[in-house]
Amino acid sequence: MIIDCHGHYTTAPRQLEQWRDRQIASLTDPAQAPAVADLKITDDELRQSIADNQLKKMQERGIDLTIFSPRASFMAHHIGTFETSATWAGICNELCYRVSRLFPDHFAGAAMLPQSPGVDPRTCIPELERCVTEYGFVAVNLNLDPSGGHWTSPPLSDRHWYPIYEKLVEHRIPAMIHASTSCNPCFHTLGAHYLNADTTAFMQCLTSDLFKDFPTLRFVIPHGGGAVPFHWGRFRGLAQQLDKPPLRDHLLNNIFFDTCIYHQPGIDLLARVIPVDNILFASEMIGAVRGIDPETGHPFDDTRRYIDASPVLDRAGRDKIFESNARRVYPRLDEALAARGR
Amino acid sequence: MIIDCHGHYTTAPRQLEQWRDRQIASLTDPAQAPAVADLKITDDELRQSIADNQLKKMQERGIDLTIFSPRASFMAHHIGTFETSATWAGICNELCYRVSRLFPDHFAGAAMLPQSPGVDPRTCIPELERCVTEYGFVAVNLNLDPSGGHWTSPPLSDRHWYPIYEKLVEHRIPAMIHASTSCNPCFHTLGAHYLNADTTAFMQCLTSDLFKDFPTLRFVIPHGGGAVPFHWGRFRGLAQQLDKPPLRDHLLNNIFFDTCIYHQPGIDLLARVIPVDNILFASEMIGAVRGIDPETGHPFDDTRRYIDASPVLDRAGRDKIFESNARRVYPRLDEALAARGR
Repeated sequence: MIIDCHGHYTTAPRQLEQWRDRQIASLTDPAQAPAVADLKITDDELRQSIADNQLKKMQERGIDLTIFSPRASFMAHHIGTFETSATWAGICNELCYRVSRLFPDHFAGAAMLPQSPGVDPRTCIPELERCVTEYGFVAVNLNLDPSGGHWTSPPLSDRHWYPIYEKLVEHRIPAMIHASTSCNPCFHTLGAHYLNADTTAFMQCLTSDLFKDFPTLRFVIPHGGGAVPFHWGRFRGLAQQLDKPPLRDHLLNNIFFDTCIYHQPGIDLLARVIPVDNILFASEMIGAVRGIDPETGHPFDDTRRYIDASPVLDRAGRDKIFESNARRVYPRLDEALAARGR
Repeated sequence: MIIDCHGHYTTAPRQLEQWRDRQIASLTDPAQAPAVADLKITDDELRQSIADNQLKKMQERGIDLTIFSPRASFMAHHIGTFETSATWAGICNELCYRVSRLFPDHFAGAAMLPQSPGVDPRTCIPELERCVTEYGFVAVNLNLDPSGGHWTSPPLSDRHWYPIYEKLVEHRIPAMIHASTSCNPCFHTLGAHYLNADTTAFMQCLTSDLFKDFPTLRFVIPHGGGAVPFHWGRFRGLAQQLDKPPLRDHLLNNIFFDTCIYHQPGIDLLARVIPVDNILFASEMIGAVRGIDPETGHPFDDTRRYIDASPVLDRAGRDKIFESNARRVYPRLDEALAARGR
């Protein structure tokens, strides 16, 4: 079985974006404020938006199941107030839930949180709990920079975030640390901000003792961990200089890297330096990079090919990356699969 | 001949830091303002600070010459006003100049600029010209984020920076795009901010047509290009999606990556995906990571070992990385060497 731990609903029917545009317009012109009930998307529309897109490619590529969350760049937590984000997160999470009900063999939900810059993360807990207990979601996405590229929140090691971590631990769900759209012109969202956020998240953990306080907390760092595996020697050296334990003991019981790296040499490096137990298969399909690589004739984001072709991995390693690591890192997914005899 | 294009004067005599502390204190208490003449460092002190440190390690490692600039983390352009930075840059550049005169076979100077957040970069030109024409410096370091982690400047592609680029082109010197200390608690300077800045710089160039306006401008992106080579497929795919030419045509006549990557697999990946003509040897010694790698028994930052050992490189490739690329990217260095019969 092949589990992709990183997919977003990037292909939702157009009504969703139109509703969001009205919500954003209402921030300056309250007369335009849409009601949640104004958004009407039928099951057939949802089904088609998935069957023609993600599911089609999953079947072409042999991916069985995707952990599926709202479109990352559309979270845009910097827009409006907590109430803006709360309404928007509620809508987006419900759509992912409906997808997971329409295609229960192929999608498991992960939640976006109604974060808002400067607002206590505790306010996200009701939505988090609703997604886990009512929707059966198996993870959340946590945005370490809800300001959208202005970096005004405390580091992930700060007690600011602890109420969220307590809930993650209680419900045994991991957080993928995933930024959203950059509204800072310095940072291209897909080519700079996401990768910077990944590197930053890892270093915030490295300099702290967060996982002493939360030994069972699990973070998934997407996009192959940003710059981290490429600079693994630098990070090992910095940890040593900062009198931290070796990274394996200090962080690798709690941090996992996905395989959203869109060329063979990158995947090979990941597999060479990061223990295979800490690598989770993912493609972020349909996402940041949608074209065909002229050097291979295959889609850039068909990451399964790189893993299949990597000389660094053996059969047992691939099995871990494709399935068993995900079942360990996402125990609620494992239980849901087991309940369906998988 | 082996040229290290990335060294900072991290071992300057203590008087320098003490002078800077007084300068910083004077920002709130002008009575403490030190005069430039208050800083007294003898040639013997300079000589010893180099001979016992950088030069010793260069000789141990077989590095002939280092392009040497003021300590990157001490540039701290976010502190004080333009005048603060101007005085400080003047002092730091002069020390590097004196080092280059004391050890003319082993050090060539590169300037820090007196940048200050929100101040027109044009104000940096007098110091830039002084360093080139009076000191014989062969490059500058350009900080794309003088705010120190708040990212308040326009992207490198913005006309804001063009006056600097005109001077770089006129004097035929490259800019190493190098951030300084982060004063944003989100970003560890060495483990996040520098690498993020590298990735960000590359993407700012990718999304623009900067090098159409400046076809002979050359940027060196340090620390192996941050996350860029590891995600080379992502960047190739994003360029394609943004209707930009292939990266080789779009950016690689102008952008070069150094080899400050502190483990073998990272250097191997760099050499595998980046054309050898775009790689410059560097170690940033004595810099970010000073320890011994327990996995190899050698210093993390002894990057020559990784290049010598890389199965991806042949003799001709190593010669380019160690010497001839640097002589091409830093033509004023080449001329200075040729004048000395090297």
